Amino acid sequence: MDGLEILPVRGIGDVTAGDDLAELISRNAPWLRDGDVLVVTSKIVSKAEGRLVEVPADGPERERARERVLDAETRRVVARRGSTAIVQTHHGFVMAAAGIDASNVDKTHLVLLPESPDDSARRLRAALAARGLRVGVIISDTMGRTWRNGLTDVALGAAGIEPFRDHRGEIDPYGNELQLTQMAVIDELAAAGELVKGKCDQVPVAVVRGYPGAGRAETPGAGVLLRDAADDMFSLGTAEAHAEGLRTAATLPEAATDTPASPGAVRRAIATAGLAGAVAVPSPQTLRCTVTDSRPAGLMRFGADVQRLRAALAAEGLASAVAYDEGGATIAVSGAAL
Amino acid sequence: MDGLEILPVRGIGDVTAGDDLAELISRNAPWLRDGDVLVVTSKIVSKAEGRLVEVPADGPERERARERVLDAETRRVVARRGSTAIVQTHHGFVMAAAGIDASNVDKTHLVLLPESPDDSARRLRAALAARGLRVGVIISDTMGRTWRNGLTDVALGAAGIEPFRDHRGEIDPYGNELQLTQMAVIDELAAAGELVKGKCDQVPVAVVRGYPGAGRAETPGAGVLLRDAADDMFSLGTAEAHAEGLRTAATLPEAATDTPASPGAVRRAIATAGLAGAVAVPSPQTLRCTVTDSRPAGLMRFGADVQRLRAALAAEGLASAVAYDEGGATIAVSGAAL
Repeated sequence: MDGLEILPVRGIGDVTAGDDLAELISRNAPWLRDGDVLVVTSKIVSKAEGRLVEVPADGPERERARERVLDAETRRVVARRGSTAIVQTHHGFVMAAAGIDASNVDKTHLVLLPESPDDSARRLRAALAARGLRVGVIISDTMGRTWRNGLTDVALGAAGIEPFRDHRGEIDPYGNELQLTQMAVIDELAAAGELVKGKCDQVPVAVVRGYPGAGRAETPGAGVLLRDAADDMFSLGTAEAHAEGLRTAATLPEAATDTPASPGAVRRAIATAGLAGAVAVPSPQTLRCTVTDSRPAGLMRFGADVQRLRAALAAEGLASAVAYDEGGATIAVSGAAL
Repeated sequence: MDGLEILPVRGIGDVTAGDDLAELISRNAPWLRDGDVLVVTSKIVSKAEGRLVEVPADGPERERARERVLDAETRRVVARRGSTAIVQTHHGFVMAAAGIDASNVDKTHLVLLPESPDDSARRLRAALAARGLRVGVIISDTMGRTWRNGLTDVALGAAGIEPFRDHRGEIDPYGNELQLTQMAVIDELAAAGELVKGKCDQVPVAVVRGYPGAGRAETPGAGVLLRDAADDMFSLGTAEAHAEGLRTAATLPEAATDTPASPGAVRRAIATAGLAGAVAVPSPQTLRCTVTDSRPAGLMRFGADVQRLRAALAAEGLASAVAYDEGGATIAVSGAAL
């Protein structure tokens, strides 16, 4: 790897529905070469594909229309706070406002994301190949990040360039085998491309020259960058997940598993519920709470305490089932299924 | 903005404690110019600063030592799953394993992050300025991201380069004022630099040439990229926050606010608890539950139901306080403080 160049493509100007992006790009960048990687702002792809919706130019109707458009583009809400909504789109991208954009378009329209950015990238790559140019195409958009201020560009779609550079299995100079290093190269290329674009400069396409391996026909798209739900430790924002925990406590069906409850977890749960000293543990899988106040209100409060204890057990991953009798409650506890 | 170059600095080789990075870099990149931005991998900064800890080369003792080092570097655990721990370091970075690295170092050591990457960047920038080079310095490291597979490089420390490029307030060609576009340029520069480094290539420094504004002395560091806790919608992973919700349900102190409860929220809470038809709403701020089974077990279950309802109310952001009497329970509800 000797070095890379990042070059702006100027002169593209307004893009409208039906425009031929391959023609626009190659006309304004006659210097393109095989092996180049084009970083194309998703907005001009959306405009060429007619992915605009009409909305009132101003007034309260505009805000209501924007909310309806956001609902339509949203598969799932991940987190909300004030006017900020982080949602998962139907494609699977997790972004503020589902990537809907009101900038760089006239006030009576909003721009949606392309319907399938990987398909758009493939079509554009093929159209440029038909013109004799073997290039990679990345369709980029601007996104925020958890825990870090500011925005960066990332890849929504890609064709002709491997999404990852994988170092797993390599041996470093000290003899260590690298375990975890799979670089999201198309996101880094998107970020690099953004450095020569502005937001009002009308530079919607950048070219990265010198990155090896661009232009080949069969590559996975950018979709492989989307984390599976099963691996997602942040599928709901903190406040949303906290509220879901409260909802779980509001139902908390009785359950039992074959896994023993850990005594440490049981002790932590009793402490969380503020019931240390009030709960006997006759066996590791059985808790016994004894009534001290048998008046009606005392029995009701006792039941509330048992429910609180079951919520605390659930917080530790422990299932529970209750048997009430005149003297108190016996709670059978068990651990999470392995 | 005409275009950028990204250039690798080769020949640096092994770095050990006490090495003079400014000397190493300028000797291996005699072609450096004013206005260049250096992207320096944090690992060589850590090595030069002696930020290594000794651990057993293998065996179960190694794993225990790694855990102790992780604990020491961790300010707060954000999320854990299996062997993956996303933690906030004392600096404030949110990263897997607190950025502790076992690669590209001999097996008897682990590399920690620099103690203050911004200070390290400032010292390196000043040392290069003393050699007559007015450059920007970014100290980069590799991080994962929520919702996206693969890793990218970001800026841990910076000096001589503005962290953001701010488009807020600009007017686009359609007359719209840009609201939300603050680009995290030093993260994009870090990502661009990574494209010419490998993980085993021993190319720990890249140079970005042509980005305007690099080299000035007084700039905020990369610390401004760290999101405040108050703005962080993902301060805990989903599973962790869900468990915290269950813990909240296990205590749920009685409370009242001056804000009225929304009737829609009250209805949702009653439905969540599965108690529609069993809860009367004599006034918008008062719920009444009536005992139907006055035997001891019936009263205990009634108390558990009241606790479940209070958890469901809390999930909707509603505070509650309970008064028990022989016939049932009266719950005063109020809304979240504005």
